[in-house]
Amino acid sequence: MLYHVQMTVRLPADLPTEVAADLKAREKALAQQLQREGVWRHLWRIAGQYANVSIFDVPDHATLHDTLMRLPLFPYMDITVLPLCRHPSSLHDDER
Amino acid sequence: MLYHVQMTVRLPADLPTEVAADLKAREKALAQQLQREGVWRHLWRIAGQYANVSIFDVPDHATLHDTLMRLPLFPYMDITVLPLCRHPSSLHDDER
Amino acid sequence: MLYHVQMTVRLPADLPTEVAADLKAREKALAQQLQREGVWRHLWRIAGQYANVSIFDVPDHATLHDTLMRLPLFPYMDITVLPLCRHPSSLHDDER
Amino acid sequence: MLYHVQMTVRLPADLPTEVAADLKAREKALAQQLQREGVWRHLWRIAGQYANVSIFDVPDHATLHDTLMRLPLFPYMDITVLPLCRHPSSLHDDER
Amino acid sequence: MLYHVQMTVRLPADLPTEVAADLKAREKALAQQLQREGVWRHLWRIAGQYANVSIFDVPDHATLHDTLMRLPLFPYMDITVLPLCRHPSSLHDDER
Amino acid sequence: MLYHVQMTVRLPADLPTEVAADLKAREKALAQQLQREGVWRHLWRIAGQYANVSIFDVPDHATLHDTLMRLPLFPYMDITVLPLCRHPSSLHDDER
Amino acid sequence: MLYHVQMTVRLPADLPTEVAADLKAREKALAQQLQREGVWRHLWRIAGQYANVSIFDVPDHATLHDTLMRLPLFPYMDITVLPLCRHPSSLHDDER
Amino acid sequence: MLYHVQMTVRLPADLPTEVAADLKAREKALAQQLQREGVWRHLWRIAGQYANVSIFDVPDHATLHDTLMRLPLFPYMDITVLPLCRHPSSLHDDER
Amino acid sequence: MLYHVQMTVRLPADLPTEVAADLKAREKALAQQLQREGVWRHLWRIAGQYANVSIFDVPDHATLHDTLMRLPLFPYMDITVLPLCRHPSSLHDDER
Amino acid sequence: MLYHVQMTVRLPADLPTEVAADLKAREKALAQQLQREGVWRHLWRIAGQYANVSIFDVPDHATLHDTLMRLPLFPYMDITVLPLCRHPSSLHDDER
Repeated sequence: MLYHVQMTVRLPADLPTEVAADLKAREKALAQQLQREGVWRHLWRIAGQYANVSIFDVPDHATLHDTLMRLPLFPYMDITVLPLCRHPSSLHDDER
Repeated sequence: MLYHVQMTVRLPADLPTEVAADLKAREKALAQQLQREGVWRHLWRIAGQYANVSIFDVPDHATLHDTLMRLPLFPYMDITVLPLCRHPSSLHDDER
Repeated sequence: MLYHVQMTVRLPADLPTEVAADLKAREKALAQQLQREGVWRHLWRIAGQYANVSIFDVPDHATLHDTLMRLPLFPYMDITVLPLCRHPSSLHDDER
Repeated sequence: MLYHVQMTVRLPADLPTEVAADLKAREKALAQQLQREGVWRHLWRIAGQYANVSIFDVPDHATLHDTLMRLPLFPYMDITVLPLCRHPSSLHDDER
Repeated sequence: MLYHVQMTVRLPADLPTEVAADLKAREKALAQQLQREGVWRHLWRIAGQYANVSIFDVPDHATLHDTLMRLPLFPYMDITVLPLCRHPSSLHDDER
Repeated sequence: MLYHVQMTVRLPADLPTEVAADLKAREKALAQQLQREGVWRHLWRIAGQYANVSIFDVPDHATLHDTLMRLPLFPYMDITVLPLCRHPSSLHDDER
Repeated sequence: MLYHVQMTVRLPADLPTEVAADLKAREKALAQQLQREGVWRHLWRIAGQYANVSIFDVPDHATLHDTLMRLPLFPYMDITVLPLCRHPSSLHDDER
Repeated sequence: MLYHVQMTVRLPADLPTEVAADLKAREKALAQQLQREGVWRHLWRIAGQYANVSIFDVPDHATLHDTLMRLPLFPYMDITVLPLCRHPSSLHDDER
Repeated sequence: MLYHVQMTVRLPADLPTEVAADLKAREKALAQQLQREGVWRHLWRIAGQYANVSIFDVPDHATLHDTLMRLPLFPYMDITVLPLCRHPSSLHDDER
Repeated sequence: MLYHVQMTVRLPADLPTEVAADLKAREKALAQQLQREGVWRHLWRIAGQYANVSIFDVPDHATLHDTLMRLPLFPYMDITVLPLCRHPSSLHDDER
């Protein structure tokens, strides 16, 4: 099932540079692993913001929650979730 | 270039049924033509709402505006637009 | 899967009484059928408002959307949806 | 009487790990005790958020307030309360 | 139990004068009856607005809801409800 | 004259316990003195929140402001003020 | 006593021109009479909006409410009221 | 030209008392000088809030900005600005 | 002086086509005349919305207000105004 | 392509003066370089706020994002972006 997830990152101004760098590196590694597994199906940067729009493809709500909780930046993100379903006008087979 | 477009439809309660049906049929026909042309790259229904999340792929802002203006339901929709760009962690070639 | 759905009804002031009565009767009949089927798992009135808080139990987003679209009052309701999952502190087996 | 309570947890970024762990352990213990007593009737995680939706069953407003005040995470939560009552379309005996 | 209820009246501009006058007369009669019964314990006008702040004293949420639903102006009001309880610093016996 | 005052307390998480206790003790003492003087006419806790709804009875705006400024918790509170006046349907003599 | 009142006029698009003209003429006449009486102490247009910022000088909340209710445009206005008092840095005698 | 300026002061809880006192003393001195110069034409306290409503009379936007920037409390204030102009119903010569 | 003006047009769904066409034609004619006069210095469409961002260059607030009031679409627009001034980092002579 | 960018600067109160001065100096230098290159086409201060309204002229969303990310004050700014396109009533050749 598909979920529209919007994440805005708010790192504290006083977070040490190396802590931030480590968080970002681990976030990137996990984001790429989840893309390879087909879980994080789309990932776009919102121009001008430290934020992204993502489409997740997971079997259920619990898997979505567990996946987001595993993100190293989770404690520093504002997250909104919209459940998506097939649009009657869609022509794409994978937009379930 | 990619744009994230969220559309919420608000048809007036007193719109005659046949007018609404005609609007929706023409909207669907154009939406499918634009998908075939690669302009309306993704189209999802937001579960529980008369609303969609879409990704448009057009050469510039003006083309986006003209495309949205051509939608028969345009006068009845609340539309928000976010410009998207490639995310540094993205692995997908077509997420420019 | 469980969804938290909040519905606020906004009937137009000039809706004829018999039309409103018919809508409400059909809404009630369907709401009770969906409860008997286990789909509309909880249904509470919010005190002081023409609104309810509901828990739906459906296999996926698409079924949720189709179910809500079938409600006779759907065109007159503001609806918000939250996907729910099991809370790590929950003791109740059916709070998946 | 039933109350719909939505709690969003906002732990400060600089809260020591062991303090947070202790708070969460005590919160969980009390949450489970209140569930066993029938006071915390439903408890769901909102997918993607450090937040829950709960239904409390207490004799009056004062008991609700005292119960929420006893939660170890109370100082770190945004809480909204909606009084619930029986919906005329409800078929469930315990949805008073 | 006590409830803080704020009501804002929004009469449609095209409501016939005599209909409005009848609604207001019946609203006033019921408001005064409920005050005499001790149910509508306080009633104040908010200066500069067609709105009031009220304190209701009813045995439970359901009675509050039924009471508000009986108000002739109910369909034309925005209503917010806050459950109140005794404040630890209160000296007044009837502020339960 | 009557004023509806809603106060929400936001104590910083790192306020030393004894400072908070002292603030609260002095707040309570002053709140009770002002009740005895007839200035703080009503005081209710909002269930589930560290907040209150109050009715103040003072001769003018300046006295209201000076009274609120004297509260030890004033620097830690969000305060909203609504001027109240007699409602045409009120039966209570003291709801001026 | 002084009150800061902000009024935004929202005339319905289908209000007959002569009705609107009559409302505005009567509004202007009363506004000027209240200025002459010293009640409507200041009156400014907000540039670019059909709205004004005003300072009223009346003995109490009830007089403010009755005065605003007498305005012919009252049913078509969104009104917000702020009670004002003397600022400790003010040098003007009439800013009570 | 006239500008409506609303300022809300938000001093950090951990600002040393003597720093706050110095800021306030310098703010007051400058506010009074600007009143004497006819620049800060009106200054009122909003009852119950650490906030003011002010009317500034300056030749242009740049002077307004420079004047506000000179206020010692500027870094601690939320400021909103509305350009004002003469209201067609105004009788006061100095409400340009 | 420069003003940032954002205008969103909300034409009623039942406005006759020829009335709308006439309004738009007169709006366009006046917009172009004001551009030629140097008053409406910049005019951009916001992509995807029936809205524009504009920069006006007028001697004072009153001229801005009178200019906006003359726009045929004024009654159908939501307008927000921000006074602009020279930025200390600007290199452009005409960004006063 | 043109983008409307609004930036509000929120420097932490405890940022050392010399750090803030260095940030601002580097921000100014880059802002002026980008103006000389024709990228930062317009730059205005919003009167009364530590904020600006800007028009950027860049080939695509990615360049906009990279440009904004290079600003030394980026981590301390709230930024909103609106894609602009030519308005049908515009007479200016460079308002593409």
